[in-house]
Amino acid sequence: MKKFVNSVDTMLTESLDGFVAAHSDILLLGEGHKFVRRRTLKPGKVALISGGGSGHEPLHAGFVGHGMLDAACPGQVFTSPTPDQMVEAATSVDQGAGCLFIVKNYEGDVMNFDMAAEMSEGVMQVVTNDDVAVEDSLYTTGRRGVAGTLVVEKIVGAAAEEGRGLAELKTLGDRVNAATRSMGVALTSCTVPAAGKPTFEIGDDEMEFGVGIHGEPGRRRDRLKGADEIAKEICAAIAGDLGGKMRGKALLFVNGFGGTPSMELYLMYNATRRIFERHGVEVVRSLVGSYVTSLDMAGCSITLSMLDDEAARLWDAPVNTAALRWGV
Amino acid sequence: MKKFVNSVDTMLTESLDGFVAAHSDILLLGEGHKFVRRRTLKPGKVALISGGGSGHEPLHAGFVGHGMLDAACPGQVFTSPTPDQMVEAATSVDQGAGCLFIVKNYEGDVMNFDMAAEMSEGVMQVVTNDDVAVEDSLYTTGRRGVAGTLVVEKIVGAAAEEGRGLAELKTLGDRVNAATRSMGVALTSCTVPAAGKPTFEIGDDEMEFGVGIHGEPGRRRDRLKGADEIAKEICAAIAGDLGGKMRGKALLFVNGFGGTPSMELYLMYNATRRIFERHGVEVVRSLVGSYVTSLDMAGCSITLSMLDDEAARLWDAPVNTAALRWGV
Repeated sequence: MKKFVNSVDTMLTESLDGFVAAHSDILLLGEGHKFVRRRTLKPGKVALISGGGSGHEPLHAGFVGHGMLDAACPGQVFTSPTPDQMVEAATSVDQGAGCLFIVKNYEGDVMNFDMAAEMSEGVMQVVTNDDVAVEDSLYTTGRRGVAGTLVVEKIVGAAAEEGRGLAELKTLGDRVNAATRSMGVALTSCTVPAAGKPTFEIGDDEMEFGVGIHGEPGRRRDRLKGADEIAKEICAAIAGDLGGKMRGKALLFVNGFGGTPSMELYLMYNATRRIFERHGVEVVRSLVGSYVTSLDMAGCSITLSMLDDEAARLWDAPVNTAALRWGV
Repeated sequence: MKKFVNSVDTMLTESLDGFVAAHSDILLLGEGHKFVRRRTLKPGKVALISGGGSGHEPLHAGFVGHGMLDAACPGQVFTSPTPDQMVEAATSVDQGAGCLFIVKNYEGDVMNFDMAAEMSEGVMQVVTNDDVAVEDSLYTTGRRGVAGTLVVEKIVGAAAEEGRGLAELKTLGDRVNAATRSMGVALTSCTVPAAGKPTFEIGDDEMEFGVGIHGEPGRRRDRLKGADEIAKEICAAIAGDLGGKMRGKALLFVNGFGGTPSMELYLMYNATRRIFERHGVEVVRSLVGSYVTSLDMAGCSITLSMLDDEAARLWDAPVNTAALRWGV
């Protein structure tokens, strides 16, 4: 295993210490590394809290700050955070207007966020499930929540900043999730530090089509194809699933899984944008980079999120987090 | 070779097409993909132009925009751009106040930027050489220019935006370069698309200490060590070289080479920050991410840039580029 690490046991806490130290102008670390929260809270605002297994950085702690999340709870690598983490985060950031949990659809996450919601008052939840690759999977009943979660967190975060109420934010989050579809492909496996070896074996001429963000299986193992062919199949899967919803304006988000450099991601952006535009989609917003990762996995996912005027306006609203920053 | 690519011959232009399309609000592409420039120029401002071989993205095109560069010239992967690229970029963005070329110290780049400077009028140059790993190298006489180039481009870019003159910007650039030191380590090789195989062989238990950003040799091949040990040796090399200059406030920049995920970079930030602080440095600004890359190479570099009050103020000034954005 080739990683910058001192000990597998302390890797997460050392990284969190560095993360919060590097962004101490906007962030605080909760006791026992249980959560990362905004340094400054806004009285009367609904608190947005997310979290999940680590290894997907910058998701979620990189999206804590003005205009996005109030707190994020990091579990161990690819392992759900525990309910007490979410309860303590909620206690720390609740400003009397309630909390919205934004949860990726994985059984462990859903169970633990549910338990935390039951142990708290004034909590509602949005569960994201944007991955069109597979119905049900190794860790989910129903579809997996993947990179589209960023879009939900950004748009709902902006609306929360405007002072909207809990139920309205829950409705908005569900609406954004329903307008968002993703699919990914892996060229290499990730390596979980505690395992010390690649999660799956893959040949030099192979790719995993529809891979999950933990390296879990997708639709099929296939021979490695050219970028345009890969783009064509991903776009077709997204288009087939969106059906009649795929008209008008959209955000195109090309997400790297951690081991794929920027040059390749922009090439995939170029390929997928042309295809969606030929389908009549107007790409009015773009995001390209490694935002929802799988440790060091080489690969990428494509997310298309249909934007009405309100969603576009909220996407553009100021955001000041470690990983996304504009308008401030 | 596992990359998202259609054809090695068109990889760069396809990626540039995607890049400029994704950031069309701030960028334009020069004819024949010769340069990337700001969409909106500022009359009377000195124009800042950089460039170099591709494969280091987001450097340099990702730093074109308000508060940083006016244009960047991308060569083929790890190959200097040609003088006509810089001449055409200068012609396109010159606002009558002259041009400053910011050039990483590699023989091909220095030669081609020199030729372009001779073919143009009103050009001065800053050559960066922040890498303490080796004196002279495979591609340089003297030290290599690496991640510290970003710091020069940001600080000089902010000063140019304030309306300062060409000679003053040249002096400032040289001063920032002289206050900046870097060193890197590779855990894996990069793979140049046209070569189709790794640039160098490296064992599962080895690292290349002091590696260059093209995968060229550093100080030595060593067995893979723990993060704290790696950090200790890099910091010692930087401290030994800075000598008496290493006092007071500094920017600590932990840069990923392309294949190393965020979790490990923040762990290295944590490790190096503690060491520099024990040396009496006050880390007042931080940057952590993959900004000066070597395609898909796993590894990172550490840059320490000593900041006087003016440099800190210029670092904080608004910047609006594809890869760095704040204050706007």
